[in-house]
Amino acid sequence: MKIKIGILGYGNLGRGIECAVKQNDDMELAAVFTRRNPSDVKILTDGVPVYSADEAAMHKDDIDVLILCGGSATDLPKQTPEYAKYFNVIDSFDTHAKIPEHFAEVDAAAKAGGNVGIISVGWDPGMFSLNRLYANAILSDGKDYTFWGRGVSQGHSDAIRRIDGVKDAKQYTVPVESALEAVRSGENPELSTRQKHTRECYVVAEDGADKSRIELEIKTMPNYFADYDTTVHFISEDELKANHSAIPHGGFVIRCGKTGWNNENNHVIEYSLKLDSNPEFTSSVLIAYARAAYRLNKEGQCGCKTVFDIAPAYLCKQDGEYLRKNLL
Amino acid sequence: MKIKIGILGYGNLGRGIECAVKQNDDMELAAVFTRRNPSDVKILTDGVPVYSADEAAMHKDDIDVLILCGGSATDLPKQTPEYAKYFNVIDSFDTHAKIPEHFAEVDAAAKAGGNVGIISVGWDPGMFSLNRLYANAILSDGKDYTFWGRGVSQGHSDAIRRIDGVKDAKQYTVPVESALEAVRSGENPELSTRQKHTRECYVVAEDGADKSRIELEIKTMPNYFADYDTTVHFISEDELKANHSAIPHGGFVIRCGKTGWNNENNHVIEYSLKLDSNPEFTSSVLIAYARAAYRLNKEGQCGCKTVFDIAPAYLCKQDGEYLRKNLL
Repeated sequence: MKIKIGILGYGNLGRGIECAVKQNDDMELAAVFTRRNPSDVKILTDGVPVYSADEAAMHKDDIDVLILCGGSATDLPKQTPEYAKYFNVIDSFDTHAKIPEHFAEVDAAAKAGGNVGIISVGWDPGMFSLNRLYANAILSDGKDYTFWGRGVSQGHSDAIRRIDGVKDAKQYTVPVESALEAVRSGENPELSTRQKHTRECYVVAEDGADKSRIELEIKTMPNYFADYDTTVHFISEDELKANHSAIPHGGFVIRCGKTGWNNENNHVIEYSLKLDSNPEFTSSVLIAYARAAYRLNKEGQCGCKTVFDIAPAYLCKQDGEYLRKNLL
Repeated sequence: MKIKIGILGYGNLGRGIECAVKQNDDMELAAVFTRRNPSDVKILTDGVPVYSADEAAMHKDDIDVLILCGGSATDLPKQTPEYAKYFNVIDSFDTHAKIPEHFAEVDAAAKAGGNVGIISVGWDPGMFSLNRLYANAILSDGKDYTFWGRGVSQGHSDAIRRIDGVKDAKQYTVPVESALEAVRSGENPELSTRQKHTRECYVVAEDGADKSRIELEIKTMPNYFADYDTTVHFISEDELKANHSAIPHGGFVIRCGKTGWNNENNHVIEYSLKLDSNPEFTSSVLIAYARAAYRLNKEGQCGCKTVFDIAPAYLCKQDGEYLRKNLL
C-alpha cells in the first residue's frame, strides 16, 4: 500500500513534489488540486486527475497527505489551517516572524480534524533549522552563523522587476568568502549585513530605458539592496534566458563553540547545501516529512509539528533495523 | 530541579562529560563511578563523590542518567545492558558490526528496568549517522561519502606503539583533498581506500632502534596501514609532547544526489566537523542525549534507542515555543 500524496498548487514547488514522488517507490501521486481551471493544467504524471482546489475536501479519503505548494505571504496562512481540518498536511511556510501564529492556527485545525500538520518544512526553515538546533544542543557555549547562496532570491528578483524600465531580472545572493573563512577559523567575528553577503543583479532593461537611473534605484532600495554591496549587470533578454533560467541556491549553517574545563577547546560544526534546483530540493524535503506525517497519524498522533518534533527515523521508508545496520 | 548525571569511567571521555555538565545549567554532576580505587580518582568538580563501580546500583535513586564512558571492545557490551537495568543510560558504542546485538541486549535490559538506554551516541556513530540518514531521506537517488580527519586515531597510534623499538607514537588520519573536491563536484566518483585517506605517523623510537625496520613494519601492517599512503616521521619525545598531545578530530559526511523528472539536477549536502578535542565534543553530544533520555523516561518511555529515534527538540533545554521562535 503506497502513501497517497496530493499536491495543492502546481507551480515550481508542485512540479518538484511530482518529481520527488516519482523517485520514492513507497508513494504515489493521487491528485493535483489547482486554483486555475483544472483543464488548463497539464501535469507530468500519466493518469493522475487534476481537480479544482475548491473540491479538495471531497477527495479527503483518497489522499493520505496533502502537500501545500502555495506562497507564504497570502496562500499558506489561509490554506494550511483550512486543509488541516481534512488532511494530513505539509507546508513550507517561511515567514519567520509569523511562525508562532501559524503554528497555533494549524495546531487547532489539525487537532479538530484528527490530522498531523507539519509546517515550515524545506531547507531554511527546515534542514538549516535542524542543524542550528543540533549544533546548539551540543555546543551550548557558541555562536551561530547562517549564510545563503550562491543562489537566486525570488523576492529580490521581483523587487528589481517592479522598477520602471526593467523588463526582467534575476538576483543572486552571494556569501562573502572571507567572512565564511573568518567564521570557520573560530574567531567568532561580529559580521554586519554588508560583510556577510553581496548581491549580484542581472537586468534586462526596456528599450531606451535610463540604465544609470535603474542601477541607482536598485542599489539604494531600502531593505532589499541598500545595506549590501550590490553589482548590476545589464544583459540581453536572450542572455538572461540562456544563462539565468535555473533556480540554484544553497548556503551554510556554522556554529563555533568551546568546550573544556576552562573553555580551552574550539569546535566548528558546518552544514552546507549546494542545490541546482531550490524548488526540487525543497520538494524532496517535503516528501520525506509527508512520510513522517502519514506514519505519525497512523500511530494516532495529531496536531501541528515542525522538523524539531519529528524523530529522524520517521523520514525513511526503511525500518529501524535496516537504518541501524546501514546508516548508524 | 536539575538533571542528575552520573559518570561511569573517569578517563578522557568521563572528564569530557564533567566539563559538559558544567556548561549546562539544567544539569548537575551527582557522582562518578570508577573501577579503580575511588580514593585514587581526583575529579575536577568540588563536592561530588567518587564511588566504586560495584556500588553503582545502590545509588540508583540519586541519578537520573548514567553516562557510560568505557570502551566499545570489552566494557560497553557488558556495562550498558547491566546498568540499563537500574538507570537511564547513554553510551558511545562504536563497533559497527555489533550494534544490532548490542541494541537487542540493551533493549531487553532497559525494558525490564523501565529505563531508557540510548546507544552509539557521539559523532560517528552519532551526528554523522544523523546526517547520513537525513541526506538519504531527502535525496533518495544519490551516493554517500564519509571522510574522517584530520585527526588522531587511537587505534592506529596503539598499533604503532606495539612495534618493537617504538617508545611512543601518534597517528593522524587525513582526508585526501582532491577526493573531497571530486565528491563535492557531484561526479559521484568510486574511491578506493587509498584514494580517500592518507595516514601520517609521528614516532618516537627507542635509542638505537632500527628506524628503517620500524618504518617498513608500519607501512606494511595489514588492515591498519598497508592499504594507505603512509608517511612516517621520527621525532623526539619532547617534540611529541609539545606538538602532538592534543586529541583533535573531525571529518565530512557528503551526499550527492539527483532530482527532476529526468534526474537533471544535482545537489550536494555536506556536514563537517573540526574538533580540537574529540572526547570533549563526543561528551557534549552524550550530554544532549542524556537530557533526551531523562525526558523520554519521564514521559513513560523505556527500551533501547539510537539518535535516529529521538525527536531533535528533546535535546534542548528550551521549550518548543522558544525553539520555533529562535532556531526554526
